[in-house]
Amino acid sequence: MDSQKNVPSKPAVKKITRQTAPRLRIIPLGGMEEVGRNMTVFEYDKDIVILDMGIQFPEEDMPGIDYIIPSISYLKGKEKNIRAVIFSHGHLDHIGAAPLLLPKLGFPPVVGRDLTIAMIKKRMEDFEKNSAKRLDIIKIGSVNDRFNFGKFRVGFFNVEHSIVDAVGVIINTPQGTIIHPGDWTMEKNPASGQTLTYHHLSELPRPKILMLESLGATNTSTKSVSEKEMYANLEKLISEARGKVIIGTFASQIKRISHLLEYAKQIGKKVALDGYSMKINVEIARELGYIKDVKETIIPVNSIGKYPDEKIIVICTGAQGEGNAVLSRIVSDDHKFIKIRKNDTIIFSSSVIPGNERTIQRLKDNLYRKCDNVVHNDIMDVHASGHCNSESIKEIIKQIRPDFFLPVYANHYILKEAAKLAGSAGLPEKNIFVLDNGSIIEFHGKEAKVLSKKVDTGYVFVDGLGIGDVGEVVLRDRQALSQDGMFVIITVVDRQLGKVKGSPDIISRGFVYLRESKELLKEVRRKVVAIVDKAANSDGTINPDYVKEEIRNQIGEFLFVKTERRPMVLPVIIEV
Amino acid sequence: MDSQKNVPSKPAVKKITRQTAPRLRIIPLGGMEEVGRNMTVFEYDKDIVILDMGIQFPEEDMPGIDYIIPSISYLKGKEKNIRAVIFSHGHLDHIGAAPLLLPKLGFPPVVGRDLTIAMIKKRMEDFEKNSAKRLDIIKIGSVNDRFNFGKFRVGFFNVEHSIVDAVGVIINTPQGTIIHPGDWTMEKNPASGQTLTYHHLSELPRPKILMLESLGATNTSTKSVSEKEMYANLEKLISEARGKVIIGTFASQIKRISHLLEYAKQIGKKVALDGYSMKINVEIARELGYIKDVKETIIPVNSIGKYPDEKIIVICTGAQGEGNAVLSRIVSDDHKFIKIRKNDTIIFSSSVIPGNERTIQRLKDNLYRKCDNVVHNDIMDVHASGHCNSESIKEIIKQIRPDFFLPVYANHYILKEAAKLAGSAGLPEKNIFVLDNGSIIEFHGKEAKVLSKKVDTGYVFVDGLGIGDVGEVVLRDRQALSQDGMFVIITVVDRQLGKVKGSPDIISRGFVYLRESKELLKEVRRKVVAIVDKAANSDGTINPDYVKEEIRNQIGEFLFVKTERRPMVLPVIIEV
Repeated sequence: MDSQKNVPSKPAVKKITRQTAPRLRIIPLGGMEEVGRNMTVFEYDKDIVILDMGIQFPEEDMPGIDYIIPSISYLKGKEKNIRAVIFSHGHLDHIGAAPLLLPKLGFPPVVGRDLTIAMIKKRMEDFEKNSAKRLDIIKIGSVNDRFNFGKFRVGFFNVEHSIVDAVGVIINTPQGTIIHPGDWTMEKNPASGQTLTYHHLSELPRPKILMLESLGATNTSTKSVSEKEMYANLEKLISEARGKVIIGTFASQIKRISHLLEYAKQIGKKVALDGYSMKINVEIARELGYIKDVKETIIPVNSIGKYPDEKIIVICTGAQGEGNAVLSRIVSDDHKFIKIRKNDTIIFSSSVIPGNERTIQRLKDNLYRKCDNVVHNDIMDVHASGHCNSESIKEIIKQIRPDFFLPVYANHYILKEAAKLAGSAGLPEKNIFVLDNGSIIEFHGKEAKVLSKKVDTGYVFVDGLGIGDVGEVVLRDRQALSQDGMFVIITVVDRQLGKVKGSPDIISRGFVYLRESKELLKEVRRKVVAIVDKAANSDGTINPDYVKEEIRNQIGEFLFVKTERRPMVLPVIIEV
Repeated sequence: MDSQKNVPSKPAVKKITRQTAPRLRIIPLGGMEEVGRNMTVFEYDKDIVILDMGIQFPEEDMPGIDYIIPSISYLKGKEKNIRAVIFSHGHLDHIGAAPLLLPKLGFPPVVGRDLTIAMIKKRMEDFEKNSAKRLDIIKIGSVNDRFNFGKFRVGFFNVEHSIVDAVGVIINTPQGTIIHPGDWTMEKNPASGQTLTYHHLSELPRPKILMLESLGATNTSTKSVSEKEMYANLEKLISEARGKVIIGTFASQIKRISHLLEYAKQIGKKVALDGYSMKINVEIARELGYIKDVKETIIPVNSIGKYPDEKIIVICTGAQGEGNAVLSRIVSDDHKFIKIRKNDTIIFSSSVIPGNERTIQRLKDNLYRKCDNVVHNDIMDVHASGHCNSESIKEIIKQIRPDFFLPVYANHYILKEAAKLAGSAGLPEKNIFVLDNGSIIEFHGKEAKVLSKKVDTGYVFVDGLGIGDVGEVVLRDRQALSQDGMFVIITVVDRQLGKVKGSPDIISRGFVYLRESKELLKEVRRKVVAIVDKAANSDGTINPDYVKEEIRNQIGEFLFVKTERRPMVLPVIIEV
């Protein structure tokens, strides 16, 4: 290297070169196979830096689960090596697991911009009062800040995303420079007028390892809604509304909410915020100065009756059709203060989170019944996405010119498509890696290698107060119970006679409507008595395990023949 | 009317005019609020004609339900008036309920084209052996056929849809002419080269009532895949494939399958069909002559090993990610004959049915792991939709120039958007009606009126052998069981002492992992004993209902405090 030319050679001192330096390890603990629970470990020598600690929302076959957090078994015994946890932005799939994982890791320093840190604090407090005090906070004041975390040197860069204070991260080590924008989009026509580019990152020390959120890799639509268009549409709808305007959006959309507040002020309308997270986030944003001078514009939701409808804008949660959120309560006439009228305007300024399609359809059906002006992206561009599309992935690769490409934060098949895009943007195939959760990739002397051994990254389910206690068995039972219900048969057996005492008790739920199945239940009781009779030994004794097994099999089969359903049959034998 | 000018006026005979003639009633029993269970009743004087008898697939909050059929309580007592049941095409949401409903209605004549009738017969036989014999079949030989069903005069017209033998229906009465294309699309570039238009329908007697399937009303994308492009892409993939080609598509896509078979023959490849419905449908299509001269091309799936991979095309079911269908079995290495290799080509020639998004994502994830060439519509146009978009809705309205417009067969909010499209195509608002399931609309003397009373159209759930026996109670229990499981507590109480005998039995599933909750269970037992002790009267007697209520409440609360979960607590008291 040029800088070394002037250094006179000193014999005895061992020079640290890429070849003699330790390997750099990158281990994604989540976010590589499905969307969510994003968390990545960077390890160099005895130092560890972590990026993000997110939650994942449960799939359909995980009933009763609140959310999923990353497994941190790889970090067991290495807690003292963790120099910092950097948070790229404040969305739950990036910060949600912090209150559960930070304490387990001994509260390593947390690094982030203002809003991100404020949201982590808030989530800590919600989880356990006064726990936010325990955070060791390092604020990113500007993208020019540089930190040394052990042997890692960390810097930042600006990115566009659907939440304020999102930041891209640069992690430099002797083995390479990791460039990680977090979640990002490439806004061609931002409301600010300043378009971000990433050419400056191409100057970073090589090898440059680009870890790129690639959720939009299969989005080949050339038309993406620009911020400017979106705001123009929203303003048109608001200014022309003859009734109330109700806008459902993500509570984390501080920038959009702020813009709407300013516009409302400008045209003399009042804004009521509703929904717990909406109110909390706006409060935080006001404290941080991200939302200013709107005291006169914001009114409490219980006072909207004091103004004429056409002066009112409601910004609220629930655009995903969540059962208890504001929009759902409004549409089911459960809201104390907000009643829909035909001439109101209801705007979904939001995208559809996969899995919520049908719930949102139902919400729309019900809103359309009560209101003539329901607007969503099918009708007009009233939401701009926070994620990139395939074109912008190619574009950012061309701007940064990385040596290695690791697509992240999406379903596996989407990561594979992102890898193809990188190939078409000119990267050699051998430098593109689609990792799994728990993959270990090592960088050493300009070479990269994925180890054959993987780290444990099994689901850690959070259900109520239980963290990780619900496993396969409990879930499988819940699935079975949901399909055909359960059927408990309690049989009291006289120990002396080896005979059933009285009539077996049956408790069944979710199987058939019991009142209309009396004949079926009678026949089951008869069969159970016969099973016990047959199983009794000559001295009257029975083998309860054998009898239970017989009841489970025979009654299970009988119920299936009669109904073609398979409830969970649970026999109980009580000997007296 | 012109034709009446030449009729000399006869005094004594009462002339039937629109004013004196009976009203025409249209009653949709399904298909107007959600997608599926399509069925419409047309009633004029003492005559009834029915269009379609479909099933609806269950929503997420209907666990264990196989499917939903229309409620026919409106037809009770009117069975003898039913002159015909017309089936527009053979998809399950149009014919699926036939085996259940036709017997209940006394097997009225069924009307349809060849494939549709063959598919109904097949479904009847699957449901009950030899039941197809009981069908009274009237085949539509050509779209020029005309039938008198009571006072209804019924004719037909050609439509494009994603299944062979789809047909549009014209139902003429003195009060108006109903035009109903069934499901349809407007194919601008059909493989046949012949583009369908509907101008000829504008000549039908007025008032013309257009009932239009409007599923695509919110699809404003101008770019729709043409059949020609789709076939060109499929042929390119097949001819260039270096390994097997596996194509997942809908089993009812006879035309596409037929096209692929012909192409395979032409280039000397072999086709294995797999999946029950796929094989059945192709068999039916071959019997009807829709698929010809492919004896040499079709090979049984168990003989694909005899040919080199690059000579093999597999056409199979399971592109929706259904657990037991062929594609899922292939990807999980459960298929006896088909193993995926990296250089195979897997094509999803299908759309995503709403509700299946996540299942399909998982299937794709797994396929991408095993195969380098997975192609779906995000990647290349390999599926053409069978449904119209907003442009074609406006176009068909302009061609037919109806007097009344009734959008049908979609979610309510989509029907509302279709109504707006009709408005923008020039129809007066008062002649556009968005009905609900069970709405009654009457046509009389060029006027239309929706009655305030509705017909019962509640969900009729089919679950195993049970039709309509699963109701709200059973479903609510299934939902509750799936969330937090159940917790049965069996307490044996000594009648003499009013004391618990032994230790209460606990059976719990889907709540916590029992092996790791011994302490919790111990405490529950202790609490139950205390509850019984406290409740016992001085003479040792207890009130079992009171004790059960106490256990339910106190243990429910205790479990919630300990776990923040709410299992279904079911106490049993056995007095001995």
